[in-house]
Amino acid sequence: MSAPTWSLQCSACGTSASVENASVCQACHQPLFATYDPVAAGTPLGSRWDMWRYAPFLPLLEGEIPVSLGEGLTPLIESPTLAAAVGVRRLWIKDEAQNPTGSFKARGMSAAVTRARAARVPGLVVPTAGNAGAALAAYGAAAGVPVRVYAPATTPRPILDTIEVMGAELIRIDGHIGDAGKLALAFAAESGYVPISTLREPYRVEGMKTMGFELVEQLGWRVPDVVVYPTGGGEGTVGIWKAINELVSSGWLPGETRQPRYLVAQAEGCAPIARAFAAGTEKADPWVDPVTHAAGLRVPSPLGDRLLLRVMRETDGLAGTASEDAIREWTRTLAVKTGIDAAPEGGCGLSVLRDAVASGAVQGDAEVVLFNTGSGASYRV
Amino acid sequence: MSAPTWSLQCSACGTSASVENASVCQACHQPLFATYDPVAAGTPLGSRWDMWRYAPFLPLLEGEIPVSLGEGLTPLIESPTLAAAVGVRRLWIKDEAQNPTGSFKARGMSAAVTRARAARVPGLVVPTAGNAGAALAAYGAAAGVPVRVYAPATTPRPILDTIEVMGAELIRIDGHIGDAGKLALAFAAESGYVPISTLREPYRVEGMKTMGFELVEQLGWRVPDVVVYPTGGGEGTVGIWKAINELVSSGWLPGETRQPRYLVAQAEGCAPIARAFAAGTEKADPWVDPVTHAAGLRVPSPLGDRLLLRVMRETDGLAGTASEDAIREWTRTLAVKTGIDAAPEGGCGLSVLRDAVASGAVQGDAEVVLFNTGSGASYRV
Ligand SMILES: Cc1ncc(COP(=O)(O)O)c(C=O)c1O
Ligand SMILES: Cc1ncc(COP(=O)(O)O)c(C=O)c1O
Repeated sequence: MSAPTWSLQCSACGTSASVENASVCQACHQPLFATYDPVAAGTPLGSRWDMWRYAPFLPLLEGEIPVSLGEGLTPLIESPTLAAAVGVRRLWIKDEAQNPTGSFKARGMSAAVTRARAARVPGLVVPTAGNAGAALAAYGAAAGVPVRVYAPATTPRPILDTIEVMGAELIRIDGHIGDAGKLALAFAAESGYVPISTLREPYRVEGMKTMGFELVEQLGWRVPDVVVYPTGGGEGTVGIWKAINELVSSGWLPGETRQPRYLVAQAEGCAPIARAFAAGTEKADPWVDPVTHAAGLRVPSPLGDRLLLRVMRETDGLAGTASEDAIREWTRTLAVKTGIDAAPEGGCGLSVLRDAVASGAVQGDAEVVLFNTGSGASYRV
Repeated sequence: MSAPTWSLQCSACGTSASVENASVCQACHQPLFATYDPVAAGTPLGSRWDMWRYAPFLPLLEGEIPVSLGEGLTPLIESPTLAAAVGVRRLWIKDEAQNPTGSFKARGMSAAVTRARAARVPGLVVPTAGNAGAALAAYGAAAGVPVRVYAPATTPRPILDTIEVMGAELIRIDGHIGDAGKLALAFAAESGYVPISTLREPYRVEGMKTMGFELVEQLGWRVPDVVVYPTGGGEGTVGIWKAINELVSSGWLPGETRQPRYLVAQAEGCAPIARAFAAGTEKADPWVDPVTHAAGLRVPSPLGDRLLLRVMRETDGLAGTASEDAIREWTRTLAVKTGIDAAPEGGCGLSVLRDAVASGAVQGDAEVVLFNTGSGASYRV
C-alpha cells in the first residue's frame, strides 16, 4: 500500500493522530480533520462522473480505486419561481436526492468505507437517524464488509427497508440517535467492528467536502452569499465549510476573500445548535425529548456542536427553526414549484430561509444555495 | 425562436412530418424518428453534468435552455462479484435509479417537456405503467405545465405518491397501460392536452438516446458485447440502439463496425416481444391478462413492437423471460452483491442474463452492460 498523502490533526487543539482506525482526538475528544499538501490552483480534476473527480483533495492512496456507487456530481438547479416565493434574487437547489440510496450521506460513506476497506476492518457499525444507515449498508455491500445499523424504530420505513435490502443487520431501538450511539459503541467494543459515527470517524466529513467543491465549480468557481443547510449532526455544513477553506487557502477562488454565510436550519422540536447560537455559547446543551418528522434533524446532542458553532461565528452565520406544519408546507411547495422530490429536511431549509428573508436577516438581493439533502420518496410511509 | 436543426421522418416508411405537436406517422402509424445533420466525430461535448452534455445530438433549439432536473450522467458500475455470479467475463450495471424521480424515464421527459414547452401546449397527458408518470409530473412542475396521468391502480404506491406530490392530476384505473392509453387519448382529444405516450410522442426516445451515448463514453468510446434491457414499451432499448447508430454513422466509434447484441428481458407474465421474437414474426400479438410485479414491464401491446423486433433482428439480438420468483431473487442478489438499490426490472434483466449464459446464448467471455432502470425504493410497499 502506498503512503497516505494526508495526515490527521484535532480540529480543536491540533494534536496529531494516526490515519488508521482513527476516532476523536485522544487529548480533547473533539473531531479530527485530515490535512493535505495544498492542491495547486488549476490542478486538473478527474474525469470521473462522481465525487472522486476531486480526488486530489480526498483521502485516497495513490492508485487506490475507491468504493463508489456513483455518489455526487448532483445537479444545481436554479429556480426563479422559488426565488420569488421566498424573496431572494437568485436561488439554486443542490439536489442530493440523486445520490445512491437517495441522500448526501452516500458521499461520506463512500470515503469512510474506502478507508475502512483498506484497513481490513472486520465490520462496520453506525448509529443513525436513518439515511446514514442506508448509505453505509449500500457501501458495505459494495465493499463486501459486514454492516450493523442502530436506528430509531420511528425512522421512516422506506429507509429501514433499504438497510435490510442491502443485507445489513438492522437493530431498531426505542430512542433517538444519541441512544443508538451508545449501543453502537458498546457493540464495537465487544465485536471489533469499527464505529462510523458522524464526526467521530474522520473520513465521512471528507466525502461531504465534495458538496462544497461541486457547488463552487457549478457556480463558475465562486461562492454564493448564503448556503442553507438542514443540520443535524453537522457533517454536511462542516464539510462544505472545510472544502471552501481548502479552496481559498490554496488559491482556487482568486476573487473570493470570504466564506458564504451558513444558515443552519433545524426543526422546532430539536434545535440544539440554533438555541446555542442564539445564546452565544461555545457548545450546545443536549435537547431533551427531540421530536420531528424530518428524521435526519433529530440529533439532540451532536458531537460536532463546538465545531458547528465556530463555523457559524466565523462566517457571520445564521440559524433558524421550522415547525412541523411549516416543514410539511414548504416541502410540498418545493416539489410543486420545481419538480424536485424534496425531503422534509429540504422543506425545513426552505421554510427557515423564507423566515430569514422576511425578518431581514438574509437580504433580498442575496444569491442563495439551498440543499435538498434527501429524497422525498424515502419518507412516504 | 430559432429554426430546428432536426427533422422528423417515419421510422418505418420514411414519410416526413412536422416537428411541432408531432405524433405517429400519418401514412403508416409507426413511430417517427428525429434526424440531424451528422455531428462530426470529436465535436466538443457540453460541460453540463446532465444528459444535455450531448446537446448536438438532441432536439434543442439554438440558445434554448432545456427543462432539466439533472437527468442522466448516471454511473456505470463494474461488479466482478456479480459477473462471477452470472458467469460472464465483465459486467457493468448502469444505475438509472440515480435520476430525478428514480428512473430512466426522466431522460425522455426532459426532452419531451422541453419541446412541449416551446410549443406552448396547454397541458400534457400520459398513460403509464408508473415511472413515466412520475417523471412527467416532475418535469411538468419544473416547466409550469399542467399534467394529467392515467395509471393502473396496482402501480406501486410510492410511484403514485410521487405523481401527486408533484401536483399532477392522477387518475387510477382498473386495467393496464393499454387501457390507460385509450383514456389518455380520449382526454387529449377533448381537452387539447398533448399526449406524451411512449414512441407516439417522438422526443422521449431522443432523451433515451443519452443512455447509449453515456455508456459508450464511459467505456472509452467502444460498445460492449451485450446490452441487457428490461423492456416494456421499448423506448429504452430503441433509444440506445438509435444513439449507437448515430455515433457509428458519423464516425465517433472508429474501431466499431457493429451494434451490441440487445438482450430484451421481459416478465413471464407479460412477454409479447420475447414471444414474437421466438416465433420470428414482424409484429407482436397483444398479451392477454398481463401480470407482473415489475410494473414497468406490464406493457401487453407496445406501439414499438415492429421497431423493437427489427432492432433485435438487425443486431443478432436475444430475448428471455423471468418468473416472478426469479425476479424477486435476482433483484435481491443485485442489491446485496453490489449495493445498488435495484428495481424489480433490473432484477428481471439479471435473471434473464443468467439464463442466457447458462444456455450458451450469451458466451462466458462476453462484456455485458445491464441496465438497472429504476429504484428499488419506488417499489417498497
Ligand atoms: C436528509 C437529511 N438531511 C439532513 C441531515 C442532517 O445532516 P448532518 O447530520 O450532516 O447535519 C440528515 C442526517 O441524517 C439527513 O438524513
Ligand atoms: C423501471 C422500469 N424499467 C423498465 C421499463 C420498460 O422500459 P421501456 O418502456 O422503455 O421498454 C419501465 C417502463 O415503465 C420502467 O419503469
